[in-house]
Amino acid sequence: MNTIADISQPELAQALQRALDNKTKPLGSLGRLEALAQRIGLILGTPQPTLRAPQMLVCAADHGLAARGVSAYPSDVTWQMVENFLAGGAAVSVLARQHGIGLNVVDCGVRHDFAPRPGLFVRKVAPGTADASSGPAMSAAQCAQAIANGREVLRGLPGNALLLGEMGIGNTSAASLLLARLAGLDVADVTGAGTGLDAAAVQRKIGILREVLARHGDAQAPLDALAAFGGFEIATLTGAVLQAAEERRVIVVDGFIASAAVLVAAHLEPNVLQRCVFAHCSGERGHALMLAHLKVEPLLDLGLRLGEGSGAALAWPLLVSACALLREMASFESAGVSRSEELEQNPTAHR
Amino acid sequence: MNTIADISQPELAQALQRALDNKTKPLGSLGRLEALAQRIGLILGTPQPTLRAPQMLVCAADHGLAARGVSAYPSDVTWQMVENFLAGGAAVSVLARQHGIGLNVVDCGVRHDFAPRPGLFVRKVAPGTADASSGPAMSAAQCAQAIANGREVLRGLPGNALLLGEMGIGNTSAASLLLARLAGLDVADVTGAGTGLDAAAVQRKIGILREVLARHGDAQAPLDALAAFGGFEIATLTGAVLQAAEERRVIVVDGFIASAAVLVAAHLEPNVLQRCVFAHCSGERGHALMLAHLKVEPLLDLGLRLGEGSGAALAWPLLVSACALLREMASFESAGVSRSEELEQNPTAHR
Repeated sequence: MNTIADISQPELAQALQRALDNKTKPLGSLGRLEALAQRIGLILGTPQPTLRAPQMLVCAADHGLAARGVSAYPSDVTWQMVENFLAGGAAVSVLARQHGIGLNVVDCGVRHDFAPRPGLFVRKVAPGTADASSGPAMSAAQCAQAIANGREVLRGLPGNALLLGEMGIGNTSAASLLLARLAGLDVADVTGAGTGLDAAAVQRKIGILREVLARHGDAQAPLDALAAFGGFEIATLTGAVLQAAEERRVIVVDGFIASAAVLVAAHLEPNVLQRCVFAHCSGERGHALMLAHLKVEPLLDLGLRLGEGSGAALAWPLLVSACALLREMASFESAGVSRSEELEQNPTAHR
Repeated sequence: MNTIADISQPELAQALQRALDNKTKPLGSLGRLEALAQRIGLILGTPQPTLRAPQMLVCAADHGLAARGVSAYPSDVTWQMVENFLAGGAAVSVLARQHGIGLNVVDCGVRHDFAPRPGLFVRKVAPGTADASSGPAMSAAQCAQAIANGREVLRGLPGNALLLGEMGIGNTSAASLLLARLAGLDVADVTGAGTGLDAAAVQRKIGILREVLARHGDAQAPLDALAAFGGFEIATLTGAVLQAAEERRVIVVDGFIASAAVLVAAHLEPNVLQRCVFAHCSGERGHALMLAHLKVEPLLDLGLRLGEGSGAALAWPLLVSACALLREMASFESAGVSRSEELEQNPTAHR
């Protein structure tokens, strides 16, 4: 495809760096917040970025592979947690409330019929994917439908920032499969405990995932791999990411599963990554390798392994801070603060 | 002294862990936020902690040693930045505003006379410390006065959380000296670029600090070292930390200099550390070793090296989140969510 534009904009990047360097602080002393401010400025195309009406998109779906025992929890937890998100009792509900982030839950393919209500988008492709160990998780048409759903839901959301969240018992397996296939890594290196498997169960999970990979040896292209391994929530997130990237929204990526959706999107459209802020490095095995494959550095490293978008919501205030510092901090001139003595003679001394 | 009580409270710790384990999430999946929630619960003595009216205390002072050229900036920047804090244009001003944190600036010994105004506490022991390379930075009486000032200012502040901030051209030198002396480390390993010295200037700084350490070989006890090396802002912060610990406020520690005040306080009263949350690991050389010496793990690692309390303010929303998750998340029972199959048979399986 490659329809998503390059937004590197050297002149704006220079203007942003100049603005940061003129703030009343030693050069570079805001550390990684400076790169974050740069990135948000470039995405929003302004030296004075303001984040508006951030939207958390929690995509939920079930996985046929869960029947093989790849998760510590039963599949029913997927729909139960969707109810919990909407009732306000899940971690992501609490964090979205704390930070004024809109909470949008999408039934992308949960094995349950939900009563309609505000905040819930029913975009169910099917009640769960098929078991990837006995055939493709979804058909090419289903995969395209889930991606189209993600684009459509995203188009209807306000604001200029998207936070990625997900729920789906069995979805660390899908994410591990996508990472192993698209990055060419050994599945044993990218498969972890998910919601809490013990060591023996992780070994069984690895065996099952090897079997799935072998069965779909021809599914090498990003969309083929996505259809082969699932799930509907990852495909819907992939669509939302592509759409958000086209619209130049700031995309805040959560943990292992949300990153898998970005991985697929970035293999289709590399410039997607210019719009992404990676919130955290998950405690789930494989996420650090996923981030390394994407050549990105996450903001937080708190051993989170909950998903739901919880890590994205926790990192959110850092994005708000980066913009506020850019907009509101005084310059040396405006505040009447003396510069470094060395800098007065040579303004580029510390670059 | 040892007048500050042990608050480890095993029963409350168990109640907190039970509450966390009953939340609708896999066991331990909130990572380090769980330990943070535990800590805040223990400090405030409740399984349902609420942080109220957080107060940032930015202590400012000048250093006689700055005349030896240990900083990239002139001493005048200390008072100019105090004006900037109060005018709302500094990084800490922006971040305190963002998070609703009260901003309190203390003139602990700045070489400048400030016009009185709201938010400024004038507790000037002297207009800057003496040059530590030719004598003690302060007398024992001055040191005691600065500590008493910190206690007194803190007593007058509302709320149950204190965030530590500081400003003082030359104060990374004082912090490096305190760390080298109290932790028994080589000063070359704990001395960095501060506000932006180049490599040659850092070497000169190390030479000067070696000289200062040798001159005060007898200043081994915490208060003797503090008086020998300074500064007034570190001593005032030490007093505020001791007082906040006595009052069981949550103490949010910023970077290298704020940690040096906690280092002194902890060498006087080890239980102080039970009340501390370390916000971040600074980019300033020596801070990682300081945190290792105190056996603590910081929340953020963003390469910040600005001081002012900026890192403490950036980490603040994580503390608010930890409390909100503890208070507001649903339990498996209340939300009707199924538990892990293994856990139903053996509730301690994943501990």
